[in-house]
Amino acid sequence: MKFRLLASATESRARIGELSTGHGLVQTPAFLPVGTRGTVKGVFPRDLLDLGASMILCNTYHLLLRPGIDLLRSLGGLHRFLGWPGAILTDSGGYQVFSLSSLRSIDDRGVAFRSHLDGKLLFLSPELAVEFQSIAGSDLAMSLDECPPWPASSSELDQAVRRTVLWAARGKETWRRLRESCSGLPTPEAGLFAIVQGGGSAKLRGLCAEELGAIGFDGFAIGGVSVGEPVEEGLRAVAETVVHLDPGRPRYVMGVGEPWQIVEMVNLGVDLFDCVLPTRLARHGVAYTERGRLSLRNASFRLDTEPLSAECGCYTCRHFHRAYLRHLLKSEEILGVMLLTLHNLYFYLCLMRGIRRALETGRWDPFLAEQRRRRKEYKEGS
Amino acid sequence: MKFRLLASATESRARIGELSTGHGLVQTPAFLPVGTRGTVKGVFPRDLLDLGASMILCNTYHLLLRPGIDLLRSLGGLHRFLGWPGAILTDSGGYQVFSLSSLRSIDDRGVAFRSHLDGKLLFLSPELAVEFQSIAGSDLAMSLDECPPWPASSSELDQAVRRTVLWAARGKETWRRLRESCSGLPTPEAGLFAIVQGGGSAKLRGLCAEELGAIGFDGFAIGGVSVGEPVEEGLRAVAETVVHLDPGRPRYVMGVGEPWQIVEMVNLGVDLFDCVLPTRLARHGVAYTERGRLSLRNASFRLDTEPLSAECGCYTCRHFHRAYLRHLLKSEEILGVMLLTLHNLYFYLCLMRGIRRALETGRWDPFLAEQRRRRKEYKEGS
Ligand SMILES: [Zn+2]
Ligand SMILES: [Zn+2]
Repeated sequence: MKFRLLASATESRARIGELSTGHGLVQTPAFLPVGTRGTVKGVFPRDLLDLGASMILCNTYHLLLRPGIDLLRSLGGLHRFLGWPGAILTDSGGYQVFSLSSLRSIDDRGVAFRSHLDGKLLFLSPELAVEFQSIAGSDLAMSLDECPPWPASSSELDQAVRRTVLWAARGKETWRRLRESCSGLPTPEAGLFAIVQGGGSAKLRGLCAEELGAIGFDGFAIGGVSVGEPVEEGLRAVAETVVHLDPGRPRYVMGVGEPWQIVEMVNLGVDLFDCVLPTRLARHGVAYTERGRLSLRNASFRLDTEPLSAECGCYTCRHFHRAYLRHLLKSEEILGVMLLTLHNLYFYLCLMRGIRRALETGRWDPFLAEQRRRRKEYKEGS
Repeated sequence: MKFRLLASATESRARIGELSTGHGLVQTPAFLPVGTRGTVKGVFPRDLLDLGASMILCNTYHLLLRPGIDLLRSLGGLHRFLGWPGAILTDSGGYQVFSLSSLRSIDDRGVAFRSHLDGKLLFLSPELAVEFQSIAGSDLAMSLDECPPWPASSSELDQAVRRTVLWAARGKETWRRLRESCSGLPTPEAGLFAIVQGGGSAKLRGLCAEELGAIGFDGFAIGGVSVGEPVEEGLRAVAETVVHLDPGRPRYVMGVGEPWQIVEMVNLGVDLFDCVLPTRLARHGVAYTERGRLSLRNASFRLDTEPLSAECGCYTCRHFHRAYLRHLLKSEEILGVMLLTLHNLYFYLCLMRGIRRALETGRWDPFLAEQRRRRKEYKEGS
């Protein structure tokens, strides 16, 4: 994996760059649609490509449970399994182990947990996490981290940082060892990221970032954000972490977020984002627009022959009006979810294009100001 | 609506033709995907067009309940509501009133019934059925019929035929009256069909067909087929009806059917078909192939890296293998349903292209023989 910085804003850390992966170029800042169980929910891979998605996220935890590592190996890896020609970033599985499974025990060796699907006892170590992602053919893999809950005591945070660094070192060693084996995986183009923890402590964030930086990784994720903390605290944690990261490496905030949070974090110097919101909200009948969210099941849309957004150029907005979308959602028709998913992903990917264009043309400051003004207006109007 | 016969088989009544509607040409024999509640389930209208669908069926009963006639009028009719640029055939609503609703009373005036959604009392008459389809902007409308159950007593059949003819005459009168009004609906290009009933009685089928023919319609549907009778009886009823129909008008068998039934009915001289099977079976994880159905949830597909069908050129078969489709279906992911829907509709529409090509090139007999041979082989092999 190679990362090339193309331009930066003058008044902030915002920047544009280019990630070259074994499955194409990714222009940053980039938004990664989330493919939880081996599918970005409700959208054809060909439509994802048409929308301009160049990289998606796949959850290691879910794939570990189903189809499982052996099946995924037999089936020729993740790209072939999904029929997705673009880049794939895999998470380490840690976050879902902590949030979804019934945890049995955790120590420096790794985590024992029970599958939330069938109660089967499984074990994940930093070595296994990296090995699994390598077998899956991930373009960007994550080392296993311990994500502390929010809020956490300072001893919990200390422990999580210590273990995250320890595991990252062992993950990197496994990555190196696998590369020297004859399996061909990970490929020379694949990259390994480490994840910075530290909760709300600027000191621990700095310490974690410096130690991981000393070990050396292809990029860095900022974990423990969007885990329940107030949004302003999440932004502060990101700001306090970024200053300790190598500017020549890509930075990734996991699980974020609302469009305005992405804009603010780009401003803090973040390059990669993923979030389930556009696809999940579509399933709940909610559409993103320039003027905030629309809840399409609302009776006020019964006779509304306007598109979701007059400014949007997506397939949904070009052909269907709100009254029809409401009819589909009320009738529990999957076409309703399909059309809203397409629109919401278009909205996010279009936002990212707007961000990159603003940075490219040296208009980041007015772009940011306009985004903030709109958000304020929308909040006051609703 | 205009119908032009292009060619006929020499040894049977099979034929190809061209229906010109207010929303494009429809090459016959044609298969109409079914849009039950204002959507062909699980497929984007643009993908339907790409698959080669030129006409879809919409159920009057479902639209009557939701969004309702007033809303549909306000929203500018069915084509605009669905975002569907092709032709639309609407059924009369009769079949669903008899099969889905809780029926209150039926007499020569019409049918009173309770909505299966909210129990609301509604009334459908031959006049209202035609008026509603006209307001909806249907390209091909159906007059209201009484579809007798199977089996039915001879007095039930007599009654159904008598009422169906009476209602067809009143439907036609309404159609004429509406055309003379200033609403512009039905458009000059729209067509009205009558439905032939008569159950398993050749005599009643003939009587009904002759009387409807004397009233004069743009085409004729053969109703009361695929309502529970043995398939061979359904074929016989179609054969016995077709001989009484004007060869210059299109013939439509409602709700049929399996691919082999379509082939056999084309051979009997039928031009139009609709059926929920390709979309419904997709939702149940079943794919059509040249060698019969595949039930994708089956464990035997766990490691199967073959496409659904090696001969199929659809998007699903070009990019995804059976093991992945099985994974999606087992995970209850809607992408699984989307991909199977696309394949099954492709399979049906491709069969229709094959039928038309065979007729066009004078190879109907060998085509029919090959289809019959394959079916026999498949039945014996399974
Ligand atoms: Zn849109
Ligand atoms: Zn196919």
